[in-house]
Amino acid sequence: MNDTTLADGLEIRPATEADLPAIVAMLADDPLGATRESPEDLAPYRTALKRITEDPHQRLVVAVRAGRVVGTLQLTLVPGLSRKGATRSIVEGVRIHADERGSGLGTVFMEWAIATSRAEGCQLVQLTSDVTRTDAHRFYERLGFVASHVGFKLAL
Amino acid sequence: MNDTTLADGLEIRPATEADLPAIVAMLADDPLGATRESPEDLAPYRTALKRITEDPHQRLVVAVRAGRVVGTLQLTLVPGLSRKGATRSIVEGVRIHADERGSGLGTVFMEWAIATSRAEGCQLVQLTSDVTRTDAHRFYERLGFVASHVGFKLAL
Repeated sequence: MNDTTLADGLEIRPATEADLPAIVAMLADDPLGATRESPEDLAPYRTALKRITEDPHQRLVVAVRAGRVVGTLQLTLVPGLSRKGATRSIVEGVRIHADERGSGLGTVFMEWAIATSRAEGCQLVQLTSDVTRTDAHRFYERLGFVASHVGFKLAL
Repeated sequence: MNDTTLADGLEIRPATEADLPAIVAMLADDPLGATRESPEDLAPYRTALKRITEDPHQRLVVAVRAGRVVGTLQLTLVPGLSRKGATRSIVEGVRIHADERGSGLGTVFMEWAIATSRAEGCQLVQLTSDVTRTDAHRFYERLGFVASHVGFKLAL
């Protein structure tokens, strides 16, 4: 995966271990993430990052502006049989730093995810968003996503 | 992945190329799948099956009763950073043969997916279901799934 340098000095590149404090801080700085993350203990995130980077179907990236991590996003490539053997991509863990909200970074980031999915031969990009995140829903719909499904989760 | 032999002579095992005609027939025998699949041309499915079986994070299985394929399901293991580095599994492409509906196979199959996810160290099982599949929604809720998310898709 190559780095992508965009307008305004914004760069999208694979996440590394050095990015973990900034990534986990963004995961925790969120109404839902606040109770689910442990920014004071990065050990489980280091283990998880290793699993992610060893999986060739994962693209965990950060957006960097002026040397500072301002966003993160994870793309999973999922080969499948349905839809005539279509491969789909799944977007998870989209977070934009509070200072960057409204800057257009979310759009640039999702456009990167869509372009990468297309370049990888995917026929479909999908994601789920908590029912309470209504602003995010409008954002995805503006990008052309259709709210055609119900997303179910079961905690183990 | 080992085969799992269950009550009533039902077996759950990895899908092979010989299973493709039966799997694709089930994908096509569905109100949504009817217009999206090509059971008369298996070539794209063969290519996709190769991609799936080469990906160690995929579990594409069939349910077999008395030597006959009566169900299919795909489980994807997705390592991630959020929720303290949780790995989740995603269930896709659940299909039960028309002759088996109401037989309890759907429940047995999903229980297999949940048990496999747990054995693989997942903390979360997730899936999306088309908003029109209201019977399926009740089925997933009976299994303990929570309809907490909106599922968005973008066709490329």
